[in-house]
Parts: sequence; structure tokens; C-alpha cells
Amino acid sequence: MSENLVGIDIGGTKILIILINKKGKIIKRIEFPMINKQYKNVLEKILLNLKTFGKFKSIGIGSAGDINSKKGIIRYSPNIPEWKNINLKKYFEKKLKVKTIVDNDANCAAYGSFVLDGKRKNKNLITLTLGTGIGGGIVIDGKLYRGSTGSAGEIGHITINPNGPKCSCGNPGCLEAYIGKKGRISIAKSMGFNKHVSDTKILTEYARNGNKNAIAAFSKIAFYLAVGLHNIIHIFNPDMITFSGGVSNSFDLLKDTLMKELNKFTFKTPLKHVKIRKSNYSKDLGAIGAAYLSRE
Amino acid sequence: MSENLVGIDIGGTKILIILINKKGKIIKRIEFPMINKQYKNVLEKILLNLKTFGKFKSIGIGSAGDINSKKGIIRYSPNIPEWKNINLKKYFEKKLKVKTIVDNDANCAAYGSFVLDGKRKNKNLITLTLGTGIGGGIVIDGKLYRGSTGSAGEIGHITINPNGPKCSCGNPGCLEAYIGKKGRISIAKSMGFNKHVSDTKILTEYARNGNKNAIAAFSKIAFYLAVGLHNIIHIFNPDMITFSGGVSNSFDLLKDTLMKELNKFTFKTPLKHVKIRKSNYSKDLGAIGAAYLSRE
Repeated sequence: MSENLVGIDIGGTKILIILINKKGKIIKRIEFPMINKQYKNVLEKILLNLKTFGKFKSIGIGSAGDINSKKGIIRYSPNIPEWKNINLKKYFEKKLKVKTIVDNDANCAAYGSFVLDGKRKNKNLITLTLGTGIGGGIVIDGKLYRGSTGSAGEIGHITINPNGPKCSCGNPGCLEAYIGKKGRISIAKSMGFNKHVSDTKILTEYARNGNKNAIAAFSKIAFYLAVGLHNIIHIFNPDMITFSGGVSNSFDLLKDTLMKELNKFTFKTPLKHVKIRKSNYSKDLGAIGAAYLSRE
Repeated sequence: MSENLVGIDIGGTKILIILINKKGKIIKRIEFPMINKQYKNVLEKILLNLKTFGKFKSIGIGSAGDINSKKGIIRYSPNIPEWKNINLKKYFEKKLKVKTIVDNDANCAAYGSFVLDGKRKNKNLITLTLGTGIGGGIVIDGKLYRGSTGSAGEIGHITINPNGPKCSCGNPGCLEAYIGKKGRISIAKSMGFNKHVSDTKILTEYARNGNKNAIAAFSKIAFYLAVGLHNIIHIFNPDMITFSGGVSNSFDLLKDTLMKELNKFTFKTPLKHVKIRKSNYSKDLGAIGAAYLSRE
């Protein structure tokens, strides 16, 4: 029987499908835009692609949002509000007779990071996905921790200031309210940038070209990221913390302030122990992690 | 061989020793004040008492502070600064030829709560010890989670406001800075009480007698406790959260505001699932938990 695994990352703007072999090497990689959000069309398109992959052992699917991982259902996804209670597990298991699992994208990213970045040796590992929102995935003792109803890891929605700015979830002072897209825009604006430039990619270009205000904006983002990491370290005392998602590509601009703040505030023993880094597999991490999870 | 277990709670002001049988029933209970802090005298006194206990299977010891649970050493305890690098495991195993384990008191409390309050059915459980300081113990999937270097569960030292009041650890805005003893005194003072009355026991009497300012002080304490619990629920999505320590005896005065705040802010699915309560075994929880841990 083939040991190859399929990983699928369902995003609001694109679908990524990969096929990896036993050793984790990517054999095939297909990406297509999420244009027609009718779920039946999307699933059929995925299916057509999978039929060109030859034999494989299992399918892992990651998606943002509220996932019932036991039943393999996307209950609701903020990036694809058209999709509600879609049972992906049932669909693919019926069509392909292959074991299928579905999980939250941050969970998939954390598991992928545990296997690849941490080489399965860093048993306690947290991954933060730094994108429009801030997601969290938790690996404890080498196993993905989903919590009692599958809702664990909402690290973007821990309160770091009860008087802080309003988050997209409606609450004041969430970590995401400071360093999610909305928070980053507001920090960039406070440094004199207009809305257009406050997109993190463009802000990164400015900072890399030496623009002092852009560098200061990253330093502010790093300060709040440090508060979040400080809390994670004090709670979990993990072996490793990794970052994925768009903003992780600017980690070099965050690192100095981040480490300076942690060195000021965080308890020495757990801080000395933890490795903090950008995932080396950022772009494909969710799909690869989903594939590995499908084998567990 | 006897299935009885010994649990010892080493505190800054008293030592509690219990003997429990297989079913967790307390057979013997000895308490004596920690007057002479010379560790040799204290250990000898414990030893003399244990020799009156007949046969038992193992010893579990809980203490506040920095514990090396692998080696069974109290590295440093803030309540007994005279004790430094005391190897309790070695001492009792040599003297009594009985397996001995040593762990942080909040860890012991959480494990005791898992066995007794949660009846081993609430696999993901967090215990907060509400005393002079705020401690945390974490049970994940039925096992005590200590973190990668034994420093996990420092829930009292998560930042809930980077601009907040200074904590005893030196950092600004820790949960403990708001609801630890120092924080509670400052809240009571802000409600017009003098230092004497701001002791939580006395404040509790006032509140139970209907004093409006005392009731308002508890409501403020409950607000900050809610921020801490909100974060715990979003991170862990646990089955149960329990409280031990002195202030847990005033939980009835905290509960209404606590639940009101959580209902306002915390995600519905994990909030609906989690049971939040005072431990029924508050006073002996650390010793009982230590005893159970020694059997694992």
C-alpha cells in the first residue's frame, strides 16, 4: 500500500493541495484560486486533482474557522462564510474510499511544525499563525492538543489589556486586536503611514529600506507579540514556539524588540529553554501538517 | 503490601501530613507549625511522625516555589527562604526505603482536584491556588503537565495589562498583581478600607454582613479573576477549573460577577462546557494530590 499522504489547505482566497511521500518530501503541489465559492464546485475540483495523484494512504484537510474535527465538518469559516456545516470527511471518504481528517488550520500548522521544524524532538510546541487573524496551535507531549470541545488554542483571543482596543471578535484588548491585521494597520497609522502603506508587506519593504517610522511600527508590533509570548511561556514552558502566516516573513524585523522584551520580563529558566523562530515551512505548513495528522 | 499513601504539604507557616487509603479516605492527619525553620529539625519531626503510620506505599510532598520534581529537590521556596537545594527525595528514600516524589504545591493541588473534584473524568483541568500569590496547576488528558523544564502553570504571572500595577515578581500587570494579596489589599483600600480590614478574611465578614463597599471590592477582584479565567478557557478549553487556597473560601462572593463577565466575553462553546467551582477539598488538596502523584 502506498505510504503517500495528501494535505489540503482550504483558504478564503486559494486552495493548496500537496502530495508528500513517507519522508515528507513534496511530490506534487497544486494551487488554485478560490473563485467560485459554491462548495460543490470546489470539492469537485479538488477531487479531479486527487484522481491524478495515483494511490495514497489518507487525506488531511486544514481550514480556518470552527471545525468539528471528530466528525470532519467545517461548521463555519470566517473566510468562506458561504460554507456552513460542510462534511468534508464524508464527501472524500465516500468518493475515494480513503481515510480523511479535517482540522483547524492553526492546529495543522502546529502539528506540521512539530514534525518538520521541531523534528518530533520538541515535544511541547506552540505555533502562532500571524495573518489577518492570530491563530494558535498547541502540541503537548508530541500530540496535538485540541481541548475538550475542540476549541483550544485561541491564543489570538486572550486578553492582554481589558481596556484595550476592540477586536474583530467584539472583545476589548485581545492579542489579535493589537497584532492582527486591524491592529497592525492602526499601529502603522499611528506612525504616520496611510492605510495603503500599512499593509504589512509594504511596511516591510519600507523597513528593509531603512525607513525609521516603519522600523518603529515593527517594534511596536513586536512589543505586543512579546506580551503574548511571555504569557505562552509562563503557561506552557514549551520547547519551541514557531510562527507561520504572512507576517512571519517579517520576523527578522520583529526579533530584536521581541527578545529584548522577553529578556526584561519573562522568567529565566523557561525563557532560556525555549527556541523561538519562524517556521522554515511557512507557506506549505498547514497542508503538510494536515497530511501528517491524517496518518496519526 | 500496603496501598496506603502519605501526602505532605510543606508551607511557610505549617506542615500538614496525611495518610490516605486506596480509596482516598484520610486515615491520619497531623499538622504542626513551622516554627524552627532549620530544615534538618523539620525533616526529623516529619520522620518521627511517619514512623507511627505503619506500612505505606509511597510519599508525595508538595511545596511552594522552584521545585526540581525529577530529582525531588526544593531549589528555593519564597515562604521558607532558609531552605535551599534540599533533596527531600533522597532523605526520605534513604531513611524509610519508600518511593518519594516532590512537586510544586499548585501541581499537587491540580492533581488532587483531578482525582477528587473531577473524579478522573474531567481529563483537562486547571486549578488556581488563590492565596498570597496566585499559582496554577495544569492537568492535560489526565496527566499533570509540568512543561519542558518543570516551570509550566505560572498562571499568576501572565500579563493581563502591560501598563498595570507592579507585581511581587517585578513585572507590570500580572494577574497576581491584581488578585494576589497585594492586589486585593490595594482594591480594598480603593474602596475605603484601611490596611487591617483589607485582609480577605475580614473583608469577607464585612461582605457577608452586607457591607456595600466590601461587596464592591469582591466584585472588582472577580473582574480581574474573570480576565484570567477567560484567557485560560480560550487557551485550554478545559473540562473543569477549580480554586483552592484561602480566597477560594470566599468564592460565593466572587461567583456572580465572575460568571457575568465570562458570559459577556468568552467564546460560547468552551464556556458552556467548562465547570467552574471551588474545590471541595481545599484545605487538604495539596497533601492529597501529592499522595496520589506519588503513586503514578
